[in-house]
Amino acid sequence: MQQVFDEIKINTKGQGLYDFTNETLAWLKKQKISNGILNINILHTSASLVIQENADPDVLYDLKIFFDKLAPMENKLYKHTIEGRDDMPAHIKSALTNNQITLSLKDKKLMLGTWQALYLFEHRLKNHTRILSHHLIGH
Amino acid sequence: MQQVFDEIKINTKGQGLYDFTNETLAWLKKQKISNGILNINILHTSASLVIQENADPDVLYDLKIFFDKLAPMENKLYKHTIEGRDDMPAHIKSALTNNQITLSLKDKKLMLGTWQALYLFEHRLKNHTRILSHHLIGH
Amino acid sequence: MQQVFDEIKINTKGQGLYDFTNETLAWLKKQKISNGILNINILHTSASLVIQENADPDVLYDLKIFFDKLAPMENKLYKHTIEGRDDMPAHIKSALTNNQITLSLKDKKLMLGTWQALYLFEHRLKNHTRILSHHLIGH
Repeated sequence: MQQVFDEIKINTKGQGLYDFTNETLAWLKKQKISNGILNINILHTSASLVIQENADPDVLYDLKIFFDKLAPMENKLYKHTIEGRDDMPAHIKSALTNNQITLSLKDKKLMLGTWQALYLFEHRLKNHTRILSHHLIGH
Repeated sequence: MQQVFDEIKINTKGQGLYDFTNETLAWLKKQKISNGILNINILHTSASLVIQENADPDVLYDLKIFFDKLAPMENKLYKHTIEGRDDMPAHIKSALTNNQITLSLKDKKLMLGTWQALYLFEHRLKNHTRILSHHLIGH
Repeated sequence: MQQVFDEIKINTKGQGLYDFTNETLAWLKKQKISNGILNINILHTSASLVIQENADPDVLYDLKIFFDKLAPMENKLYKHTIEGRDDMPAHIKSALTNNQITLSLKDKKLMLGTWQALYLFEHRLKNHTRILSHHLIGH
């Protein structure tokens, strides 16, 4: 059994869903492990991970709008306002989605559905560099 | 260390929670691995996975109603309406719950609480066949 | 490859987020495995797991309030009321957050971001003892 650890960095420019499937696939291609578990963790609490449809960009737009309405950027709703009006909603959206995703690699192929892609869901307004820990265990 | 990959197919007939615990347990019984990680991924973005109470069916009913209210099937709320009024709410409900669940197998026993069962949460109105990727790694 | 299974018990005294990062780190320290996957499952459906900010306690307060508003403790909203007004909202909050978290251990260090901590999110009003299954696989 072998293990590899790495970090993939994604630059975000404001709220929205950023497809990082190709970055992950390119990284997997370089590894010697053909079958195993890929554990991806986002090392932040104001951005998160989702697996979503990769076909119609309107889906990504609607997701962003839905979460904005559910956890509005209104300081009066929250006690934690010291880091800006987008920070507490960001923590909430992060709690509602995922900090980590565990995927299966079979014969060098990442087990995703035809319409599935991996997205970093950025919840902050300003530019950020987000670290996605990648850990592959298998043989 | 050994690995096994398989797919379990679940036929759904409209929205609701479908208990697939027995299908997973029957599959595990056939494997030679006694201790390890079971990674279950749903290869779709309009149905999802939850671990929930298996005692009172009212819990499943209330969950369905809650998510329907939270992400209503009203076209005017969304840009993505081309696949039907139930599709965008389905993506939202999927983002709010889980695409994958990682469980532990110990001495041939799946580590679930007494009241926990595995559910496929179907969010579409029409009949579907849903693929649940099962990947077991251990020895 | 080695595997270790254990349970960590957390006593909760009503709703809120309980940081169990130190309990998990102390447990990891005692294991011989230096690199691997840590799979944590909560064996209950009315409490859940989240990774959240460990800096400002107001974040935890706001999270609790947000989820209470989203799934209010009002019997008239639910069919499942037999276990108390806090039980169905607890199941909903559990479905919206996580039953399990999968983390990576590298060189004896748990891969968490600087501001990330592991929280048990208790959704019931009365005192409970919650079991967190810990399963470490690696070498």
